[in-house]
Amino acid sequence: MRVGFIGTGIMGKSMCLHLLNGGHSVTVYSRTKSKCDDLIAKGATYAPTPAAVGANSDVVFTIVGYPSDVRQVILGENGVLSTLNDGGIVVDMTTSEPSLAKEIYAAAKAKGVSSIDAPVSGGDVGAKEARLSIMVGGDATALEKVMPLFQLMGKNIRHMGGAGAGQHTKMVNQILIATNMIGVVEGLLYAYKAGLDLNEAIAAVGAGAAGSWSINNMGPRIAKRDFNPGFMVEHFIKDMGIALKESQAMGLSLPGLALANQLYLAVMAQKDGGKLGTQALMLAFEKLNCIDRD
Amino acid sequence: MRVGFIGTGIMGKSMCLHLLNGGHSVTVYSRTKSKCDDLIAKGATYAPTPAAVGANSDVVFTIVGYPSDVRQVILGENGVLSTLNDGGIVVDMTTSEPSLAKEIYAAAKAKGVSSIDAPVSGGDVGAKEARLSIMVGGDATALEKVMPLFQLMGKNIRHMGGAGAGQHTKMVNQILIATNMIGVVEGLLYAYKAGLDLNEAIAAVGAGAAGSWSINNMGPRIAKRDFNPGFMVEHFIKDMGIALKESQAMGLSLPGLALANQLYLAVMAQKDGGKLGTQALMLAFEKLNCIDRD
Repeated sequence: MRVGFIGTGIMGKSMCLHLLNGGHSVTVYSRTKSKCDDLIAKGATYAPTPAAVGANSDVVFTIVGYPSDVRQVILGENGVLSTLNDGGIVVDMTTSEPSLAKEIYAAAKAKGVSSIDAPVSGGDVGAKEARLSIMVGGDATALEKVMPLFQLMGKNIRHMGGAGAGQHTKMVNQILIATNMIGVVEGLLYAYKAGLDLNEAIAAVGAGAAGSWSINNMGPRIAKRDFNPGFMVEHFIKDMGIALKESQAMGLSLPGLALANQLYLAVMAQKDGGKLGTQALMLAFEKLNCIDRD
Repeated sequence: MRVGFIGTGIMGKSMCLHLLNGGHSVTVYSRTKSKCDDLIAKGATYAPTPAAVGANSDVVFTIVGYPSDVRQVILGENGVLSTLNDGGIVVDMTTSEPSLAKEIYAAAKAKGVSSIDAPVSGGDVGAKEARLSIMVGGDATALEKVMPLFQLMGKNIRHMGGAGAGQHTKMVNQILIATNMIGVVEGLLYAYKAGLDLNEAIAAVGAGAAGSWSINNMGPRIAKRDFNPGFMVEHFIKDMGIALKESQAMGLSLPGLALANQLYLAVMAQKDGGKLGTQALMLAFEKLNCIDRD
C-alpha cells in the first residue's frame, strides 16, 4: 500500500519506521526536512508539502503538534485533502480536538475520501516497541483497511465510535492522568513532610487500592528528583485545554481537571517548565508550600 | 502467645480468625458481644472490657472505628494500657491519627509496655485472604515480636519508621485514592457525555499510563451503577479528615485532597450517602452537572 506520513517527531519517527519495516512504500513530510533523514535513508521518499504526500498515497497518517497544525496539514491550502485520490484515507494520530476530527470527517466525505481519528497512548517507548494503544473514531470500513497498518504500530486497537470518538477516548485518558498526578504529588509531599522514605512509601501503597501507573512510574522519578520529560508539561497543558474546551461545550463541570490545569500552569511559570516532564508538578506544589529542595 | 483482639467488624473478624487458626490463644472484646459469637465458637474467649483483654494478653490488637474509639479502648479508664503486663505490646490497626499513635506510644512507654501503629490496606477481601498490606510505625524490637502474628494476616508488611509512621503511610495511601477517584469519576462522566461505551473506554485506557486500581476496579462498578460499598464513604471521609488535619499541622496545603473531601461531603448529602461505596462519588458529580440517571 502507498502510505504517507506527516510529522516525524519522537513518536512519528518510530511509527513510520514500523510501516517501512512492514514493507510499505512510504512518502514522508515534515516542516523540518532533516527530521526525515533517517527515514529517507531507510527507503522513504520525501515530499515537499502535505499535498504532495496526499497525491502519492492511499493512506496518509498525520501526527503533528497542535490542532492548528492538524488543520493546516489536512484542511489547509496545501493540505492532504487538496490532493488525496478517491477512496483515500487520512488518519490523524495527533492528540487533537474531537470537534476538529468531526470537521475533517465531513470535509473528507465531501471530497470522496475517508477520515479516521486515532490518537495513541504509550509514549515514546510504546511507539518504539510497537505496542501503542490506538483509540479509533470513524467508519468501520475505513478502519478495516487501515487495521493492518495500525497493527504494525500498536497492540490495544479499539474502535470507539464515529468521528471524534478516538479523540474523546484520549481525553478520558488525559483527564484520568491529570487528576491522578495531583494525588501522586500530594501523597509524596505528605510522605516527605511526615519524614517517610518516599520509595518505601511507594512500595507500601503502590501495589494496592492506591496503586496506579503514575505512582509506580512517576513516583520513583520524583523521589530521585528526575524531572526530565517522558511526556512534556507543555503538551499535557495542550491536552487539558482541549479536554476543558470540549467539556465546556458538552455542558460539563470538571473541577478536578480544572484544578490540575491551573497547577500545571504553575509548573509553566518555572524556568523552562514547559519542557519538563509531567512529574514536575511536584515543583509547583513545593513552591506553593514554600519547600526549597533544589 | 496470648493474643487479645478488640474490634470484630468486617476487617477485625477475618484478621482475628487467622490468629485463632494460627494456633494462638485469643481473648476478644467488642462493644456488641454478638459480633464475637463466631470467634467464640472457634475457641476465642470473650472479655467484658478492653482492660480484661489487656490483663489476659501478651499482645493486644485493636481495629475499631474512629480515633475516639482508639483512645477509649487503649487509653481510657477501662482501656488496654490500664492492665497490660510488663513487656506487653498494644498494636492499633485502625486507620487513625498519627498524633494519637505517638501519644499512645509515649503512654505505653511510661507503663513499661510497647505500642505499634499498624493500619492496613486491602479491604475485606484482603483481610479474608490474609494478604493485607500492613504499614508499621514503632520500635523494631516490638515489631520483631509481633511479626509472626502480622504474617498470619498480611503479605506486604513494612516498617515505615517510629511511632505514627504507619498511620502517616496510610494517609499517603488515602490521599492517593481520594484525588484519583476525582479523576476516575470525571473521566467516566466525560466518556458518558461524549457517548462512549464506558467499559470500552476503561479497556482502552486502563492498561496504560492512565491505569490505576481505581479505574480498573471501581470504573466497571460505576459503569453498571453498582454503588454498594467495598469501602464506605463515611469511613473514607473520616480518613480524609485525619489527612487534612495532619497536613495542616505540618503546614502543608493539599488542594486536591481538600477538593476530594468537599466532593465526598456532597455524597454524604445524598440519601444514606455515607453507607455507599467510595465509587458513589459519581452521584455527586451527576448532581453537580444536573445529570439524572436513576
